[in-house]
Amino acid sequence: MTVPQAVDIAGKFALFAERWRPKIVAQLNGQDVRLVKVQGVFPWHSHADAEEMFLVWKGRFRVEFRDRVVELGPGQMLVVPRGVEHRTAADAEAEVMIFEPSEVVNTGDAAVSAFTAPAGERI
Amino acid sequence: MTVPQAVDIAGKFALFAERWRPKIVAQLNGQDVRLVKVQGVFPWHSHADAEEMFLVWKGRFRVEFRDRVVELGPGQMLVVPRGVEHRTAADAEAEVMIFEPSEVVNTGDAAVSAFTAPAGERI
Repeated sequence: MTVPQAVDIAGKFALFAERWRPKIVAQLNGQDVRLVKVQGVFPWHSHADAEEMFLVWKGRFRVEFRDRVVELGPGQMLVVPRGVEHRTAADAEAEVMIFEPSEVVNTGDAAVSAFTAPAGERI
Repeated sequence: MTVPQAVDIAGKFALFAERWRPKIVAQLNGQDVRLVKVQGVFPWHSHADAEEMFLVWKGRFRVEFRDRVVELGPGQMLVVPRGVEHRTAADAEAEVMIFEPSEVVNTGDAAVSAFTAPAGERI
């Protein structure tokens, strides 16, 4: 059995600087808890088989849909329904916690690009 | 399609006062995101088929296992492995976010008691 360990979220964010590269901090029930730093605009994409939850830890973050934009600040979250096209963006660096199935690729159905993160990277 | 809505965690916590009664604030991929206020000590129990994640939002919270205790403060989290007996506790009121499968009953395999929360309560 894995011995349950406390995870300090801010401490984990302090361990990396690169952007758009989610790091796994916990896994449970087939889901990942991932931390990501973002700045700029991510490509449009969707996830056909998974909902995706964003919880903002620090900074301002927005989730853009084709017909509207949802702005989020620290302590605010949003669930993107499966199959819905979206992109994420931040004018200044933001820190975001993501909750989604372990098999989800960050760029979804978009073509592989510089934004596509390696799978399974832990921190 | 459900229109994605921003959820403000502190705002949701402000909507209720009762303790040990998790409220669902989001559902995704068969999982619930639940908020709970706690003070005192919860009964010993385990969840045979589910891992359970606790993320402390406010206050001090501890997860007790039979052989050790993990203390958590704001921004700290822990995953309880499936089948592992545990109980949660807080000396002063704490606010905690829980991630777990939607079918999980808060008291797990313990006998139904005053601590057993109604299923599916949303806020």
